[in-house]
Amino acid sequence: MSVPAGQHTVRRHNLALVLGEVAGPEPLSRAGVAARTGLTRGTVSSLVEELIAAGLVTELAAARGGPGRPASPLRLDPRGPAGLGLEVRVDAVGACVVDLTGAVRVQRTVPSDHRDDVPDAALGRLAALAAEVVAEAGLPIAGATVALPGVVGPDGVLERAPNLPRWVDVAVGPALGARLRGVPVRAANEADLAALAERWAGGPADAIVVSGGIGVGAGVLLGGALFAGASGRAGEIGHVVVDPDGRPCHCGGRGCLETVAGLEALTGPEAGPEAVREAGRALGIALAGAVHLLDVPAVVLGGGYPGVGPPLLDAVRAELQARVFSRTGVEVSCSTLGTDAALHGAATAVVQGVLADPGALIGAQG
Amino acid sequence: MSVPAGQHTVRRHNLALVLGEVAGPEPLSRAGVAARTGLTRGTVSSLVEELIAAGLVTELAAARGGPGRPASPLRLDPRGPAGLGLEVRVDAVGACVVDLTGAVRVQRTVPSDHRDDVPDAALGRLAALAAEVVAEAGLPIAGATVALPGVVGPDGVLERAPNLPRWVDVAVGPALGARLRGVPVRAANEADLAALAERWAGGPADAIVVSGGIGVGAGVLLGGALFAGASGRAGEIGHVVVDPDGRPCHCGGRGCLETVAGLEALTGPEAGPEAVREAGRALGIALAGAVHLLDVPAVVLGGGYPGVGPPLLDAVRAELQARVFSRTGVEVSCSTLGTDAALHGAATAVVQGVLADPGALIGAQG
Repeated sequence: MSVPAGQHTVRRHNLALVLGEVAGPEPLSRAGVAARTGLTRGTVSSLVEELIAAGLVTELAAARGGPGRPASPLRLDPRGPAGLGLEVRVDAVGACVVDLTGAVRVQRTVPSDHRDDVPDAALGRLAALAAEVVAEAGLPIAGATVALPGVVGPDGVLERAPNLPRWVDVAVGPALGARLRGVPVRAANEADLAALAERWAGGPADAIVVSGGIGVGAGVLLGGALFAGASGRAGEIGHVVVDPDGRPCHCGGRGCLETVAGLEALTGPEAGPEAVREAGRALGIALAGAVHLLDVPAVVLGGGYPGVGPPLLDAVRAELQARVFSRTGVEVSCSTLGTDAALHGAATAVVQGVLADPGALIGAQG
Repeated sequence: MSVPAGQHTVRRHNLALVLGEVAGPEPLSRAGVAARTGLTRGTVSSLVEELIAAGLVTELAAARGGPGRPASPLRLDPRGPAGLGLEVRVDAVGACVVDLTGAVRVQRTVPSDHRDDVPDAALGRLAALAAEVVAEAGLPIAGATVALPGVVGPDGVLERAPNLPRWVDVAVGPALGARLRGVPVRAANEADLAALAERWAGGPADAIVVSGGIGVGAGVLLGGALFAGASGRAGEIGHVVVDPDGRPCHCGGRGCLETVAGLEALTGPEAGPEAVREAGRALGIALAGAVHLLDVPAVVLGGGYPGVGPPLLDAVRAELQARVFSRTGVEVSCSTLGTDAALHGAATAVVQGVLADPGALIGAQG
């Protein structure tokens, strides 16, 4: 029997609506969901049954509240389809599994320098690591996202990663998917995923989230969503020029932010005694330009930057205060998510996708 | 008799739909509009009558085409409600009237240096100029937009204009409206209006349009629309830092693009022999950062820049080529709209508003 398109669309919408209520902070029973959504109790029950069958929702034991029939609270099922997060860093690979409730169930990061590698070697190592964490988590996998330290085009191809010179136009998603028995793998820029992770952890809706590593990137949040630019490549703050005649950059330019504020310039063997102050100043200069161009009231320093210590933050603040002429100023803070923000963001992006449209997963389950 | 909200909304939507067809490149009769919109001929005729009564549409003499009743082509009425464009420049005021068909009917610009002025004096001069052009045009005025050389907040207040130090938090729109017998005056950043003008003239949908004057600003187009940032203040490229230890800027910072590439630095008495090359280089450096942050594939140099000549454009292109690592490169061109792009854009913004929602104007008329 075929269902008319209209009804099908409405049901899919309502599945997301009900799951959204179940995912909310307050434990709700079927009756509670009906009250909050305006759907009938019959409709809610039918949708809840479907979500339970798909492994997305679980119904806890009835808790006796007021008078009448006891209400059984609904929760997201921590045994349900989980998100697989993957990451290729310049000097490591990482994999983690985040369950539907947002909990990190397994995570592993392995040092592995890819600067001289062709992609194949690194992707093989990453796929092996992924298989390990998936086996250890013992959860069904709804999908995967891989965080990459370079420019990812709208087609998901890694076009270029200045610190991985041999990675040019690599279809990382399909290459990993083939190694992972067909798990769908979406590729995204690591700084974009770290910015989303920041937002999902309660960070500001409008902000530039800078991800400090060997490379420097940023994810730009506007109205709580990622700002994509014309084609999803926005936020490449690492190649904003802070010193026009400065050191050559791996990107082919000169004096890019990354050459002064990348973690190797900051803490590597050639770093001078003033390296942190210089990096902070350079970050402040680049961020002043970004604030003027993008009109964002907040900056979050993430990745390896929080570990550098207060002098970096102080220098960034001082530079922004001297250079930004906005009436309200710019709020500068350090991320508390640690250096795995992008990896967790990658896994959480899958979970968020399931929560936003459970009907797609249910359709795929068959 | 009151009309139910639903019907009212539908009628307003259909008025815009019909006017949009009339505004299109191809002359259409009522029957032609009905065929293209899917509305009944009776509905179209009733909407067309309303648009004619409001002075927005005119029906030309019947042209005998094929067999049957001759079709009378509908056109936008050049005698209908027009847009008043106003502009406060650092060193001039301007006013123009653009009719519904997009034609500039009257325009006047008067030198008037406002750097030491309080707003009142300039606004008085601008209002007098506006009254002159309105009288000369002899058209009903649907509304006005005023282009301003500074940051305009979401509430329409000019917060700050670095080259007009005494203009701080000025409600320019209401101040002009009061002087213009209540014509509604909306305030907007001049570079934003120039960017929209570029788009309305057939320019690229995704671009940074730089407006070179005594100050330097930019309007950012994404998907054909203005990119606003978090609160409408995006695009302040003039205060992107190109030389961290450079000259002090009126904004309070140092080494801002404006200090090297503003028209006074470029062509003023203190400009050195290399000024154009230095300005081009600085523009290229700032634009490289903007392209990396905003992800736009095109740059249009407008305002006074096209008048500076090819060496400026060449220097910008060379710098962008050396510094942008996008796979597709950046298309750099000069605007052909001249230094009045913002002023014309201001008037055209009013006309575009009428075309997008004629029901609002008809409601205000009636």
